[in-house]
Amino acid sequence: MEKPYFISNKEDPSPLRVEVARRVRFEETDLLGIVWHGHYASYFEDARVALGEKYGIGYLDYYENNVTAPIKKMHVDYHRPLRLMERFTIEAIFHWSDALRINNEFIIRDSDNLIATTGYTVQVMLDHKNNLMLVPPPFVKAFREKWKSGELK
Amino acid sequence: MEKPYFISNKEDPSPLRVEVARRVRFEETDLLGIVWHGHYASYFEDARVALGEKYGIGYLDYYENNVTAPIKKMHVDYHRPLRLMERFTIEAIFHWSDALRINNEFIIRDSDNLIATTGYTVQVMLDHKNNLMLVPPPFVKAFREKWKSGELK
Amino acid sequence: MEKPYFISNKEDPSPLRVEVARRVRFEETDLLGIVWHGHYASYFEDARVALGEKYGIGYLDYYENNVTAPIKKMHVDYHRPLRLMERFTIEAIFHWSDALRINNEFIIRDSDNLIATTGYTVQVMLDHKNNLMLVPPPFVKAFREKWKSGELK
Amino acid sequence: MEKPYFISNKEDPSPLRVEVARRVRFEETDLLGIVWHGHYASYFEDARVALGEKYGIGYLDYYENNVTAPIKKMHVDYHRPLRLMERFTIEAIFHWSDALRINNEFIIRDSDNLIATTGYTVQVMLDHKNNLMLVPPPFVKAFREKWKSGELK
Repeated sequence: MEKPYFISNKEDPSPLRVEVARRVRFEETDLLGIVWHGHYASYFEDARVALGEKYGIGYLDYYENNVTAPIKKMHVDYHRPLRLMERFTIEAIFHWSDALRINNEFIIRDSDNLIATTGYTVQVMLDHKNNLMLVPPPFVKAFREKWKSGELK
Repeated sequence: MEKPYFISNKEDPSPLRVEVARRVRFEETDLLGIVWHGHYASYFEDARVALGEKYGIGYLDYYENNVTAPIKKMHVDYHRPLRLMERFTIEAIFHWSDALRINNEFIIRDSDNLIATTGYTVQVMLDHKNNLMLVPPPFVKAFREKWKSGELK
Repeated sequence: MEKPYFISNKEDPSPLRVEVARRVRFEETDLLGIVWHGHYASYFEDARVALGEKYGIGYLDYYENNVTAPIKKMHVDYHRPLRLMERFTIEAIFHWSDALRINNEFIIRDSDNLIATTGYTVQVMLDHKNNLMLVPPPFVKAFREKWKSGELK
Repeated sequence: MEKPYFISNKEDPSPLRVEVARRVRFEETDLLGIVWHGHYASYFEDARVALGEKYGIGYLDYYENNVTAPIKKMHVDYHRPLRLMERFTIEAIFHWSDALRINNEFIIRDSDNLIATTGYTVQVMLDHKNNLMLVPPPFVKAFREKWKSGELK
C-alpha cells in the first residue's frame, strides 16, 4: 500500500474494525492454483457484512429502512496470491467521513499472517426514489452519533 | 445418457428447441484446466433464458404476471470436460407435460461437436402468495394452446 | 426425497457423515431474495471438502497421488428456498460402493432445521493419463479397508 | 471519471482498443435487480481476453511461453447500475507503458449507450520461477515493437 486509502482528520473518531476468517474454495482457484482476482470482492463483502451486523448498519437494516447503500468505487491491490484451500482473514476498517459515505478499507492476511491483499470500497446512500441522500436516515444518524461520541469500538 | 430424462406420450406435441453458443471463461476452469462442475447450472440457464424469450415465457414475462417458476430439480451428467477458452453450444429441449411443469432437457456439445454434458431441470409455477399453481396463468395457457395446436416450432 | 439416492447392501459398512455450517451470501440471492439454484453445487462442495479432509481423501490427497476424482453426476432436489443471510447446515453422507466410485448424498437444513435441499454426486477416479481406475490407488485402498473394517465413523 | 486512469506521454503509440458485447445474466443480479458489484471483474475479463486474442498476447500465449501475467491492481468506478437481462458493451483500452506492465482501462456502456462503469487493471509479468520480469519475453517484445512502430490498431 503506497499511501493511505483514506485520509483522516485529527478530530475524527477512531476507525471501527472487524475481522472474519474464511478459506479458499476449490472453485475459486484457477489453473495456477491461485485465487482468481475477481473473487476478492466476495472476500471483502464478508467483512463488510460482519461490520454491518456488529454495528446495526447491515444490509437488512438498510433494507428495512428503504435505503440502499450501493458501492460506487472498489479498489484492490494484490500483493501475494492466496492458494488452494488456504485459510485467511479479512479485516474491514470503517473510516469516519463527514460526508455521508461508507469508506471501508480491507486487509486480507494469508495463512502466514502476511498481507495478501488490500483495498477499499466507497458506498453512498440512496433513498427509496434512488436519490442520493445527504442527510443520514435516523438509524444511521444514531449510529454516527454513537461513533462520534467514542462509545463504539 | 442411459435412459431418456423425460418420457413423452404419442399425442404430446413435439418438444421445442433452442441452441445458444458460449465460451468457457478463464475463471470457470479449475486447477486442471477444466470447467468446475458447478458452473454448468449457468450454462443451462443461458439456453433456458433463450427458450423463454423465443416463446414469450421468460423470466420477465413471469415477473410481470406475478408468477415465479422456481427450479425444483436439477440433474447433470458429465460426459466429457470442457476446457479453458473452449467454444461450445447448449441446446435446451422443452418437453411437453400435461401437468403444469417446465421440463427442460439440456445438451452441451464441445468444440468438436461431441456431447460434453447432458441434464435436465424441472420447474413449477407459484402464484404471488407462493402457492403451487395447478391451472396455468393466462399467458402460459395461451402459450400451451399454441404449442398443443402445432403452431410453434 | 421420494426414494433413496443410493441403495446399500446389508453387508456394506455404515455411511460416513460430516456436517458443516455456512451462511447465505448477499451475492448468492436473486431478485426474489432466495438463493439462485446454481449455487448449491458450491454448498455441496463445502461438505465434500470437509468429508475428504476428515478421512484423508481430500483434493490435496488425490492431487499428491496424481489421481483426479471428477464428478460424473450431480442431482439436486430443491424443497424449500434458502433466504438472504440465512444460516444453514450441509450434511454429506458418503455411501459405500463396491465399485470404485464416490457416492455422496447431501442434505441441507435451513435455519429452522427443516430440510431445504437434498441431492447427490457421483465421482470416479482417473489416473495421470485420464484413464478410469478400477483398482483403487494405495491411499484410497487403505481408506476403504479401514472403512470396511468398521474402524471409521 | 474524475481524472485519467493512465497518463501517456506524447511519443507513446496510440492505445489499442477492442469492444465486446455481453448481457446481464439472471444470477448476476441481486435483490434490487441490479448487477452485484463483484461481477464486473468478469465483465472486464471478457474484454481483456478479446484484447489478448486480437493481438496474440492472450492467456494461452502467456501459458505456452511459461509466463504469467497476474493482476496487481484493479479499480472500478460504478456510475450507473446494469439491470436484469440488460445488454451492454465492454471496451478495453490498452495503454502503452515503457515499463513492462499491462495497463488496461475499461469502459462499460449500458443499453442506452451511457457509461455505466469505468475502471482499470494493472498486470505484471512473472517468469516460470515467479520472478518479476523486467525484460519482455520474445513474443511480447515482438508485439511491443509492432505497437511502437504504429503497425497495430
